[in-house]
Amino acid sequence: MTVPLTHEPPGYQCPFCILATGVDTGHNCQRDIVQRTACAMALISPRWWPANHGHVLVVPIRHYENLYELPAEAGHAVHDLVRDIAIAIRKTYGCEGVSTRQHNEPAGGQDAWHYHVHVFPRYSGDQLYASAPYPEFVTAAQRRPYADRLRNYFESSTR
Amino acid sequence: MTVPLTHEPPGYQCPFCILATGVDTGHNCQRDIVQRTACAMALISPRWWPANHGHVLVVPIRHYENLYELPAEAGHAVHDLVRDIAIAIRKTYGCEGVSTRQHNEPAGGQDAWHYHVHVFPRYSGDQLYASAPYPEFVTAAQRRPYADRLRNYFESSTR
Repeated sequence: MTVPLTHEPPGYQCPFCILATGVDTGHNCQRDIVQRTACAMALISPRWWPANHGHVLVVPIRHYENLYELPAEAGHAVHDLVRDIAIAIRKTYGCEGVSTRQHNEPAGGQDAWHYHVHVFPRYSGDQLYASAPYPEFVTAAQRRPYADRLRNYFESSTR
Repeated sequence: MTVPLTHEPPGYQCPFCILATGVDTGHNCQRDIVQRTACAMALISPRWWPANHGHVLVVPIRHYENLYELPAEAGHAVHDLVRDIAIAIRKTYGCEGVSTRQHNEPAGGQDAWHYHVHVFPRYSGDQLYASAPYPEFVTAAQRRPYADRLRNYFESSTR
């Protein structure tokens, strides 16, 4: 294989690892974390697509760059949380479907070097694949209603 | 919730279930199955995107319509096989990355009513998201070199 499998630059300051330790980043704050399990957490993405606002990223708590190197235990934990988030989005966003995607390496569309699964609310004719994300990250105030909706869902479902 | 969560029509003849029982379908033959575990199997997709030939579908052996209703055991088995396929594609297709996606409900882009995860080989500038799949299904002869490549990889890696 001529192309390296890993692309994380030396000294990478991982935004998901920082967030997981309880520290806000330039892109996300603690209130964006809508669910956390032993090995995975889910947060409102700071980058949005025009017709799919409030989509969620699910990540392992421990740092793994991509799917190739993800241990089974972390992969299962992420899968379980992706499913919980898919159901929660479907029940609270007013959408008509959910889709997920996950990218590995720059050629695969990856641009943050910690494994993450996108969970999108879907609407008929939303053109998710044909549309480009907003060039600017969204604000905490824009993310908050979606985070609150999901957090309330999980709180009420465990009561 | 006003929109139903399931969309499988009555009497649906599931192509993945038929294939899993050892019977060829109009879209896939047994040779397309490149790996099978206790609870999941992987096959070359009969529908291709222009710059991502030979992508793989990973499905649970048992029939579940979508992510919402997928039991954890089946979800973990699919995840494990998706990871194995991602590594195998990366090592044998000459690609520079891998991405996955999964759709639930018509608004989410689903058009086969058995949970399945797409695993795509990725190449710089392949425009996977902006491109449409070929309108016609590909032939068994077109699928065969990709199936053989993955099957050989798994056979040699277990020797």
